[in-house]
Order: sequence, then structure tokens, then C-alpha cells
Amino acid sequence: MSEDNKLEKIVSLCKRRGFIFPGSEIYGGLSGFYDFGPLGAELKFNIKQEWWKSVVRERDNIVGLSAAIIMNPKAWEASGHLSGGFTDVLVECKKCHQRFKADDFENVCLNCGWKEFTEPKHFNTMFKTFAGPVEDSSSIVYLRPETAAGIFVNFKNILDTMRVKIPFGIAQIGKAFRNEINPKDYIFRTREFEQMELEYFVKPGEDEKYFDKWVDLRFKWYKNLGLKNIRKREQSKEERAHYSNATTDIEYDFPFGWKEIEGIANRTDFDLKAHSKHSGQDLSYTDKESGEKFIPYVIEPSAGVDRVALAFLCEAYYEDKDRVVLKLHPKLAPYKVAVFPLLANKPELVKKAQETYNSLRSTFNVPIAWDDRGNIGKRYYSQDEIGTPWCVTCDHQTLEDDTVTARDRDTTNQERIKIQELKNYFEEKLK
Amino acid sequence: MSEDNKLEKIVSLCKRRGFIFPGSEIYGGLSGFYDFGPLGAELKFNIKQEWWKSVVRERDNIVGLSAAIIMNPKAWEASGHLSGGFTDVLVECKKCHQRFKADDFENVCLNCGWKEFTEPKHFNTMFKTFAGPVEDSSSIVYLRPETAAGIFVNFKNILDTMRVKIPFGIAQIGKAFRNEINPKDYIFRTREFEQMELEYFVKPGEDEKYFDKWVDLRFKWYKNLGLKNIRKREQSKEERAHYSNATTDIEYDFPFGWKEIEGIANRTDFDLKAHSKHSGQDLSYTDKESGEKFIPYVIEPSAGVDRVALAFLCEAYYEDKDRVVLKLHPKLAPYKVAVFPLLANKPELVKKAQETYNSLRSTFNVPIAWDDRGNIGKRYYSQDEIGTPWCVTCDHQTLEDDTVTARDRDTTNQERIKIQELKNYFEEKLK
Repeated sequence: MSEDNKLEKIVSLCKRRGFIFPGSEIYGGLSGFYDFGPLGAELKFNIKQEWWKSVVRERDNIVGLSAAIIMNPKAWEASGHLSGGFTDVLVECKKCHQRFKADDFENVCLNCGWKEFTEPKHFNTMFKTFAGPVEDSSSIVYLRPETAAGIFVNFKNILDTMRVKIPFGIAQIGKAFRNEINPKDYIFRTREFEQMELEYFVKPGEDEKYFDKWVDLRFKWYKNLGLKNIRKREQSKEERAHYSNATTDIEYDFPFGWKEIEGIANRTDFDLKAHSKHSGQDLSYTDKESGEKFIPYVIEPSAGVDRVALAFLCEAYYEDKDRVVLKLHPKLAPYKVAVFPLLANKPELVKKAQETYNSLRSTFNVPIAWDDRGNIGKRYYSQDEIGTPWCVTCDHQTLEDDTVTARDRDTTNQERIKIQELKNYFEEKLK
Repeated sequence: MSEDNKLEKIVSLCKRRGFIFPGSEIYGGLSGFYDFGPLGAELKFNIKQEWWKSVVRERDNIVGLSAAIIMNPKAWEASGHLSGGFTDVLVECKKCHQRFKADDFENVCLNCGWKEFTEPKHFNTMFKTFAGPVEDSSSIVYLRPETAAGIFVNFKNILDTMRVKIPFGIAQIGKAFRNEINPKDYIFRTREFEQMELEYFVKPGEDEKYFDKWVDLRFKWYKNLGLKNIRKREQSKEERAHYSNATTDIEYDFPFGWKEIEGIANRTDFDLKAHSKHSGQDLSYTDKESGEKFIPYVIEPSAGVDRVALAFLCEAYYEDKDRVVLKLHPKLAPYKVAVFPLLANKPELVKKAQETYNSLRSTFNVPIAWDDRGNIGKRYYSQDEIGTPWCVTCDHQTLEDDTVTARDRDTTNQERIKIQELKNYFEEKLK
């Protein structure tokens, strides 16, 4: 299986099995936008939930936030997004007027083959719109190109209302938008995407320690959820943003090469200082015990939910002799368990399987599936393909002793288990 | 407490305790946009989770979806949002040029007092932006003004990939945007908001039955989560959209009057027919058993997360003699339990309380709080104000027999409970 081929196969599986559809597909799609079907929505939900659990729930000093996508445009002046810092360079073909991102461009128009182009010019990739009933320059607002700014502008609100002490963090998950000139690589580079971002505020001087800690914590999070083909890559001084003391990317080995799925940056006090200057608000922190006052440094682990989902899908995709398996971590799998009657035309088996399904559904708080089509082998394979870790089958023996078979997706081994023990069995496995 | 006064008090509490902040507040805010702080984010999360559980998880025939906010604009032509169906009427003051929504307008400019106005004109309230590197009419796209369209354009994808049989539903939670001329009533009418929408597809002729069923189910959902001041109101034929056979609003008695928090509409086959016509795709359904082919009718329960959150906050707000209490349903409360040492200056109590807190946090999968400031009475009141249903205190007796007090927010009664029984005690209460 070539790597190109692999991506095509994943795209096809995701379309066929309800993970990911091209955005507005019946209208011919819209470049850079995707719709997540029932299984894709569950997968992304699970990724976000695991992140939130690990970053917010299991820590004492990190709080959540859900800021608006549309912010006062002054925030983008402060952050540098408006004043030229957030641009792509584009060129235009002099013949067909198609525009290209200069990075992607090889001196021959990719549309018509012409070789003459306009001078490269800067193009701001923030989506702009107008708030209020007057469409003029005073009403221009932007869709946020990253969720982090919402955290910085609420730093003072959080300090004033929550009992937080340095070091502490503010976490947020939400949509962001970038008007990419060339969206590409499936859901890796899209115009509408979702981010999981943490801003972790620390005392200057302690930033390097916490930077290392977060690189380590985040790398382990991916490893623990089964992502093997990842590496850390330190950005060189030349690559880094000017205000960053250090940036480490966590990269995944996609079919289209090693690419960043999360960046951890030591952003120093750049953001709070900039927002303090532009807003006129004091965004410093005062240590209640020592009385010391300072602008905190910030460590930012920033991940893209969609590209993380794509990494998990690529990692999980396996072809066996006669089946395709998504070996997703059980915590990420859209369905945890599928329940079948061995034969769909034996009413007593169907009844028993339906009872088993209902009892699991009402006591076990995770999505499970029901299937009674075709032969049992096909049903196993159908669940393998969407990553369901366990299949439960009610067979003739079930009618005698209330046991069922529980089949493991990865080993295909089966165990016999009492129906009333299933709930604990799966809960234990999911821990 | 007057009703106006009540809203002011809720706004103030929400700001002071980290529920809701004005959007981009340090930059002077942005009209119609709000940021949800740590507690507000949890409250909204809990509302969405309860909705998803009741609508998707606990049913066999409803699947989830997460479509893009930005859609192909042809979808809005089909739905009628572009061709004049989604407009407000506005007038402009001839002196100061301020614009007003004609509905809100009383013949005297609310800004400068002038009495001459331009002719009323239509104003489309969809936010428009440009996708791609060329800013012209061919690149105009819109932020969705409702999430439902994402469901209709994916109807065929869901039919083709999921094993759904009529009646079945597609559910979605997500942001939507309307460029309201006059955002008002706090988070009730904003420009950026979140919706929970279900499209439930049924056989024509069975639509009335399912319409009644969903009105009933949705009304009960609010009642079960503690919303008392609600009513159902049938829209008259004149009020309803032309394609709707029936619409019932669920209204809440807000401090600013009875207002819709959810609408349940029988939209007939209007949407699927319109998208079928505009996309050229066959959006009919074929019954596999009878062979019958038809365009399904659709029942749409559509709720606004933010206004539902505001209704729960208004319902929950109580003033006792010496305390303010948010009597939120425990499932909706941002924190479920708070743990305290009776005295913050007794290390053995603090240690015991910390152990209790840690054991609950790691085994009990819900957010809990820690507090050791000031006297115990103040700490109880502080938790009452944010709606925490139970407070656990470690006192001198704890050191002897490993029991703690568990205080109930609403009754203020206390029970003594063994520490190791706390987890089950609260899990039972939260069922």
C-alpha cells in the first residue's frame, strides 16, 4: 500500500462509513470546508473530551473558557494579526488571473500553464465580515484565526473572578477560520477548523521548566492514545516567531509527510504585554504572598482537532488479508460495542440480543451499535472498519446459559461472558 | 425584587463569578457578542450534554452531525435565506444616520431625537464574507444563520452511509450567526449564538403524530431539568412560516417577558424539496419493505443554547434572607461538590480535606471545587451563589471516625457520611 494510496483509501472509507463528507457536497462542495458525519462527529467529540479531561478536569489549576469567534478587531491589532503578521504571499497568473500561494508555486501557472505572474503581494488570511447594519470600514470584524486571543483578552476577567494562583492555565476548544489560498491534504489544511488551546501562565524564570513539562505531557497524551508515528521537533531560531523563546512541534508521519499536529511555544510575555498596551488595561499579576507584581510568561500547547483526528485515522488504518481495521484507541472509537444476534431469522436470538443491547445502552454511558444484517463474519468486518473495539454475539448457547461471545477487534479472539457481567467487563477495559 | 432588577442582579452575578463576560471586554466589548467564563462554559456544556444524551444517545434512530459553519451559498438560495426571506426591515435617521430595526422603532430617533427617517428597507441579517483570495461577488459566502441547513444538505449522505429507516433523526449542536440590528436582552438576542437542532424525518401522514410527540418530549425535558416557568404556545397560521403546518413555541417567563427558548415546527417536505430542486439531487427516501418512494416530512425541534442557559439561570436565582442561591439542577451545576476543611489553619484538617478532595476528583468524573478561605459560613454561601449542590466539610470528628458533613444547597441540611461512601452518595444523587 503506497502512502498516496493509503490517504485515498482513508478518504474513501471516511466518506463511505459516515466519518467525513465534503462540505455542502450536494452543491458541489466548497473548497476548504468539510462536514463531519455521525462517526466523525463522535471521533472528534472523543478527542476533545480526552483533551479536556487531561488538561482541565484532572488538574486543579486550569479553568475552561468559551469565548466568541467574532472579537473586537482591536484585539487583532494588538496581536499583530492585522498589521501584516498574518499574511500569505500570493501571486496572480497574468493570463488566467488565478491566484496562488507563493510557497506552493513553481513558476508555471497550475491552472493554465502560463509563465508570467504579477509581483508577489501580501494577503491577510483572516476572514472579514461586517457587524451591524452599516457595511463600512468602521464595522469590519474578523473570524478568529486562532482561539488563543479569546484567552488573553479574558485574562483579567479570570484573575478577577476565579481563585487562580500562578502557575495556572486557561483552556479553550473552539472553531477558528483561516482563508487559506490553497486548502490541501484533506482535513489537514482547511479554512474552517477546530483548535484545542491552553495558555499556561507562569512566573518569568520558571518558563523553561514548564515549557519542558508541557512538551512532555502533550507528547505522552498522544502516545497514550496510541499514536506511534510521532516525533518532537524543535523549531530553529529562524523558524520561530520573533517573540517566542522556544517552540517544539509534535509532528505526525502522514501519508503526505511529517507535519505538525500540535505546537508548544514559550510565548514569553509578548501577548499580555501587547494586549495591555493596546487596551490600556493592567494585565499584570500580583503574588499575594510576596507582593511581587509581574506580567506572566505563557506556555502555549496548541493543537488542531481536525489534523489530530486525521493522524489518529492514519495510525489506525490497517489492511489484513480480508478485512480493513481501524485500530482506534477504544476511548476514541465512535462506537464502543456492537451487539448482534448470531442469526437474524431466529426470533429468540434476536430477542435476546435486543435485550442485551437495551441493557447495555441504558446502563453503560457510551455509544453502542446494533447490527443484524447478513452473515456474522460480514458484520464483524463492518464493525472493524469503523473501529468498534468489541462485538457481542448472542448465539444458541446464550439461550441455555445467558453467556455471549465478546470478540476483540484487534486480535479477533472471542471470550464467553455472562450477559450481566458485560457492563463491568467493558467499563474495566475502557479505564 | 422587581423583574428588571432581577436581570441586573443575574448579569452582575454572572460577571462576578465567572459565568458570562461581555465579549472582548478589555477593548470596550462588541455589541451582540459574549464570552463564557469557566462556570458559564461548564453550564452550557452540561445543557448540551443533557440534550445530546436525551436526543441522540438514548434513542436508536437518531444520529449526530457536525457540519461546517460556512456552506456553499447555493444552500442559502435554496432555503430562501438569500432571496429575501431572512431580512429585517431597517430605517435610518436622516440627521445622525443611525439605523434602527423598524420593529423596535417609535418615530423618534433613539440616538438623537430627530423625527425624519429614510424609507424602510430590507436588510439581510446573514453575515457575509469571502472565501478564497479574490474578494468579489463570486467568492461571497455566509456564516450560517441556523444549523439546520447543514443537516438537510447532508440528508443524502446520511441515507447512503448510515443504516437509518424512517422515522429517523439527525441532530446537531453548533454555532450560528445573525447580524441582528439591535442585539438585546443580555444573552437572549445576540449576534453569535449556539443552537441544538434536530431534524426528525417521518412519512407524510405521520407528521402530526410525531409533531405532538416531540412537543411533548421537549417540554418534559425542560420540566425534568427544573424549569417551571414555561408554557407551550401554538403559533397562529399568520405567524407561521408559509411552509409550516404547525409550530409550537416553548416559552420561558423571563424578567423581560414570555419569550421563545425552543420552537418545534412541522416543516413538511419544504426543505428537502427545495434542496432537491436547487441541487438537482434526488432527496427522496425509498421504503425497502414496501418499495414506496417519497420525500419525507420533517419535524424540527430547534433550541437556542444561550437563551436556554439564561432561562435556567433566571429560574435558579433565589434570594434568601442572607444568601443568594442558584438552585440549578445538579446535572447542570458547573461544580457538583465543593470540599472544605472546617478551619484553614489546622493542618490536620486541611490534609484530610485535601485527601477527600483528591479521592473524589480521581474517581468521580465531574468537576468539583476546593475552598479554604474565610469562615465556613461564607464558603457555603460562596458555593450557593454558583449553584454547587453539595458542600463537604472535614471537621474535628472527621479525624476520629472518617465521617464528614455533606450539606445540601437548597435545604442547607447536613448529613454525616463516611468518606469512602461519598462517591456512591453523590453518584446516586446525580442519577
